[in-house]
Amino acid sequence: MMGVKKAAIIMGSDSDFPTVSAAVKRLKSLGIPMEVHVMSAHRTPQAAAEFSGSAVKNGFGVIIAAAGKAAHLAGVLAANTTLPVIGIPIKSSTLDGLDALLATVQMPSGIPVATVAIDGADNAAILAAQILALSDETLAAKLVEMKKQMAEGVAQKDAAIQAKIQEL
Amino acid sequence: MMGVKKAAIIMGSDSDFPTVSAAVKRLKSLGIPMEVHVMSAHRTPQAAAEFSGSAVKNGFGVIIAAAGKAAHLAGVLAANTTLPVIGIPIKSSTLDGLDALLATVQMPSGIPVATVAIDGADNAAILAAQILALSDETLAAKLVEMKKQMAEGVAQKDAAIQAKIQEL
Amino acid sequence: MMGVKKAAIIMGSDSDFPTVSAAVKRLKSLGIPMEVHVMSAHRTPQAAAEFSGSAVKNGFGVIIAAAGKAAHLAGVLAANTTLPVIGIPIKSSTLDGLDALLATVQMPSGIPVATVAIDGADNAAILAAQILALSDETLAAKLVEMKKQMAEGVAQKDAAIQAKIQEL
Amino acid sequence: MMGVKKAAIIMGSDSDFPTVSAAVKRLKSLGIPMEVHVMSAHRTPQAAAEFSGSAVKNGFGVIIAAAGKAAHLAGVLAANTTLPVIGIPIKSSTLDGLDALLATVQMPSGIPVATVAIDGADNAAILAAQILALSDETLAAKLVEMKKQMAEGVAQKDAAIQAKIQEL
Amino acid sequence: MMGVKKAAIIMGSDSDFPTVSAAVKRLKSLGIPMEVHVMSAHRTPQAAAEFSGSAVKNGFGVIIAAAGKAAHLAGVLAANTTLPVIGIPIKSSTLDGLDALLATVQMPSGIPVATVAIDGADNAAILAAQILALSDETLAAKLVEMKKQMAEGVAQKDAAIQAKIQEL
Amino acid sequence: MMGVKKAAIIMGSDSDFPTVSAAVKRLKSLGIPMEVHVMSAHRTPQAAAEFSGSAVKNGFGVIIAAAGKAAHLAGVLAANTTLPVIGIPIKSSTLDGLDALLATVQMPSGIPVATVAIDGADNAAILAAQILALSDETLAAKLVEMKKQMAEGVAQKDAAIQAKIQEL
Amino acid sequence: MMGVKKAAIIMGSDSDFPTVSAAVKRLKSLGIPMEVHVMSAHRTPQAAAEFSGSAVKNGFGVIIAAAGKAAHLAGVLAANTTLPVIGIPIKSSTLDGLDALLATVQMPSGIPVATVAIDGADNAAILAAQILALSDETLAAKLVEMKKQMAEGVAQKDAAIQAKIQEL
Amino acid sequence: MMGVKKAAIIMGSDSDFPTVSAAVKRLKSLGIPMEVHVMSAHRTPQAAAEFSGSAVKNGFGVIIAAAGKAAHLAGVLAANTTLPVIGIPIKSSTLDGLDALLATVQMPSGIPVATVAIDGADNAAILAAQILALSDETLAAKLVEMKKQMAEGVAQKDAAIQAKIQEL
Repeated sequence: MMGVKKAAIIMGSDSDFPTVSAAVKRLKSLGIPMEVHVMSAHRTPQAAAEFSGSAVKNGFGVIIAAAGKAAHLAGVLAANTTLPVIGIPIKSSTLDGLDALLATVQMPSGIPVATVAIDGADNAAILAAQILALSDETLAAKLVEMKKQMAEGVAQKDAAIQAKIQEL
Repeated sequence: MMGVKKAAIIMGSDSDFPTVSAAVKRLKSLGIPMEVHVMSAHRTPQAAAEFSGSAVKNGFGVIIAAAGKAAHLAGVLAANTTLPVIGIPIKSSTLDGLDALLATVQMPSGIPVATVAIDGADNAAILAAQILALSDETLAAKLVEMKKQMAEGVAQKDAAIQAKIQEL
Repeated sequence: MMGVKKAAIIMGSDSDFPTVSAAVKRLKSLGIPMEVHVMSAHRTPQAAAEFSGSAVKNGFGVIIAAAGKAAHLAGVLAANTTLPVIGIPIKSSTLDGLDALLATVQMPSGIPVATVAIDGADNAAILAAQILALSDETLAAKLVEMKKQMAEGVAQKDAAIQAKIQEL
Repeated sequence: MMGVKKAAIIMGSDSDFPTVSAAVKRLKSLGIPMEVHVMSAHRTPQAAAEFSGSAVKNGFGVIIAAAGKAAHLAGVLAANTTLPVIGIPIKSSTLDGLDALLATVQMPSGIPVATVAIDGADNAAILAAQILALSDETLAAKLVEMKKQMAEGVAQKDAAIQAKIQEL
Repeated sequence: MMGVKKAAIIMGSDSDFPTVSAAVKRLKSLGIPMEVHVMSAHRTPQAAAEFSGSAVKNGFGVIIAAAGKAAHLAGVLAANTTLPVIGIPIKSSTLDGLDALLATVQMPSGIPVATVAIDGADNAAILAAQILALSDETLAAKLVEMKKQMAEGVAQKDAAIQAKIQEL
Repeated sequence: MMGVKKAAIIMGSDSDFPTVSAAVKRLKSLGIPMEVHVMSAHRTPQAAAEFSGSAVKNGFGVIIAAAGKAAHLAGVLAANTTLPVIGIPIKSSTLDGLDALLATVQMPSGIPVATVAIDGADNAAILAAQILALSDETLAAKLVEMKKQMAEGVAQKDAAIQAKIQEL
Repeated sequence: MMGVKKAAIIMGSDSDFPTVSAAVKRLKSLGIPMEVHVMSAHRTPQAAAEFSGSAVKNGFGVIIAAAGKAAHLAGVLAANTTLPVIGIPIKSSTLDGLDALLATVQMPSGIPVATVAIDGADNAAILAAQILALSDETLAAKLVEMKKQMAEGVAQKDAAIQAKIQEL
Repeated sequence: MMGVKKAAIIMGSDSDFPTVSAAVKRLKSLGIPMEVHVMSAHRTPQAAAEFSGSAVKNGFGVIIAAAGKAAHLAGVLAANTTLPVIGIPIKSSTLDGLDALLATVQMPSGIPVATVAIDGADNAAILAAQILALSDETLAAKLVEMKKQMAEGVAQKDAAIQAKIQEL
């Protein structure tokens, strides 16, 4: 028995918060304990390395990292831990997010980053939950329930769109 | 206690095997039990959906999916399970892997795929190990040891290159 | 004699409706019977597979699928039918539609998707009509007439622009 | 009753033949009557326009067009007919096929081209068969059978790969 | 003696006019006689082919063609004449003009299109003027003068910016 | 009467010669007088500027410039003359020619470069001939003849391919 | 002892000033003497070449060049000096800055341009300061202090975001 | 007095050495003292941080970093020093170097990396020399001489190509 593990959400800049907040909300709604921090691979490299290097002993089970442009944050965190690190590439003012995507996902052999879609904060949180749920049956049950509700939501939208079709 | 979990490696075509074999080797070297299958999101959609839909009850803890071009395999597997699904985009004869990368990573909200680099089979296996290690201290220790050896390998290469520099 | 066949329009999310509505209008204007649904390759995979798998026996002759990001919807529908499936890649908030285009068009050998331009809903409907018109001479005549009107529309615009040129 | 319709395969250059031959073989194997021609949107524009303009009365039901670089061939053919036109973007020596893909698929409203994957000649033929099969039950049955065989082929490859896994 | 030649400006859609008008203005300011038309490679292919095919005998010396998306217009015009054809790729609602650029510039051997920048209507007109000026010394002198004024304009902007620098 | 004008072909590096030689051959076959030089926008900027600045008085009517990577050569030449400048983007060892294409075609307003396809040396020469032919009826007639021969070449290839089809 | 050296900031158009002003402000705040000019590689090539060619004797130590589209300015300046030249690719109305980035960074061997991020004016100034600080200990100390303040700024933002997290 | 400063060349993997060796040779030919190391941003993050953090006191004046894929090495080194850091993006087996370019150049505000062309090792060394030459007049003179020789080399190639032209 290894205990309940926390999730960490690290963003490279507080300007990423409007996007990242979707991950915070999702983790909250699933009842997953978390810490959220602003840390920069480039402006506070030691802080980032130390956070990641002591994440296991501080009770974390997974780290989510969000950054834009030459998005090194997830890679820097992954370099300093053996915990799974999830990367959210953040779209910035040029190149439509392609730079952040490639800088996050194209990691060299040995140091993976589990990359989700550009601006995919909600999915980063769900992936974190899927990982933590492997040793938490209550959380696993919540994910199964969430999947059912998603399917029902689509069915409701399908019903609702029939009216719109008539109006065209 | 939920028991030792297996990893699944699913590839969309047996032509992906030369790339995917790196993942098989890595899982073997870490002592992780696994199943490896060829299944196609498009040619055997029911088989893929059924495999994924029954993966939890069949003892899997994580699924790795490798596919090229319009790489839907990881997404299709993720649609049918709440287990973490890791996607390996495979480079094919056109577009240098960009198509597989985008088709794997740009998943819509609700269904994440943990995407690694194009042809990043080794990292997919390491990520799977990191996920399974959250509830397996022996495996966690192996990953810490592997990370040390990687660092030592770099140090040895640094030493070895000094001779080459002299020759230039 | 195989009877009058319907067209299906499936969108991955109701947020695609403003774009997809152009296809609905075009099919209506051509008098083609249709069904329109919201179904998701990832959130309601079974519903999508079942719809597609029973499309022939339910009287459909062609399926149009619209989806964004890692757009698997058309591929998933095509995997479960031998009817022609037309894919509309939908532009979303990142990457300007390139992700949806590649995820729709780059299908592996065996399972084609007839892909139209990004956000090309009107063309998807016209292509569906061209396909159905092969066994429907009335519809074929409508398409010939539509083509003439398009040409006349361009000629009228050419005339209209002469005045604007004088003003420059 | 409109009679058995032929497929046309038009390639922009005889250098495209090694790729396009997969479409010829597939149509032959399905017993679909066809004509194959080299015609260029740019070098023989009148010939291309005339072929397409008289395709209906010459008994064609679908046209496949293969071209590389600024691939206008499918669009030029589609401009002169109301038959469904299928475009195969051909990869040439620069840009990895992206130029041909965009020049084929991004058609303006009114004139669709049913685009398949870069170098996707086999899928172009299958799509043509799916279209013709709407009014040909024998052909429709062949496509259902082909789909079964594809699935069985994957299952056989899955079996075959188990041995390779043991050897790693 | 071959006489004073006209320029033609052909746009694929009247929606291109706001961009194309810069070319009209530039030709007017240089005193170059012109005709401006809306013609579509796909909606009015015969009209486009005929215009281009008779351009020499109708006194044109150069043709400018503006089109977006799968921009075939310049290529179609070039296919039917030996006059120099200048292509303006027009940015449309997806892909930021890349599709139009590649569809215009990547012409196969034998049929060149002189491509300018995306939305580069002014430069298309200047290029047309440079071509016509080879046999028109008055026009050549105007271009030399225009180049001088451009350089002086930059020098004036350089002077003007010094004040802004002080304010920072 | 302004006299017979020469074409200049300038390449940025002698490593471009295997590609550029197609332009030399085409100009020779059309009987167009020419000079060919290696000059670099970056290594011999003054030489390039002087060549271009005195091109009119030295009897040139058009300049072809070939360069790879950050291909500034055509732009630098165009900056120093009012002659039409044709740019050939050369594919180098990275990025498949996209860098050279964008660096050649995306010229700012005022200084056009008539850009042809990546590695499109033959088309650059044909475009140069089309420009010079505006004041040279003999050359114009050669271009009309060349266009006929191209069309006949396609017709011959169409005939030749019928045999290959039978063999499949 | 070689004396205090100035920085030059050259922009290709005064429309670049809103972006470039961040570099001016940063140099001012670090007390680095500078000149700022509008000069164009294409509209005022001689002025640009002369400025760069005499930059050493005029007391400059580093040149920053900002330009968009086919951004040749930095390359043209670098061609005429042995001073380090820093390039800022400026995003313009198409292609999201990719054209300017490639045209600035992909310089041929022999003539480097030190390229910073698209629109990265602040970083261009910091890089200029880092270069000048190699022979200016006071400036070096300012850079060390600036780095500390950046780190503290991140720490403050981390503290500030904790409150926002509670509100979600 | 700050003394003669060394250059550092750090590569992320010894597989980068065949490309990076051009930089070593250039620095040697210019007589610049150097150290060359293999260090990884991801496999030996502490070693990289420590090297960079103590580079000033160890007598370095400039750091060159070469890495491929999600190339974080230059950024990680730059994060830990105020010395100028030059980044060489290395092309690897997918995406033709675009990933390494974007991951190197798109640095966030505050931490610049002076990026050269993909695989541009020679230019990285020349840029390093240009930076060090600001306080080393002998080195500055060597760079002026090198620039002259480059120009003469182009002139010789121009002469040599005249013979090849005759043979065509």
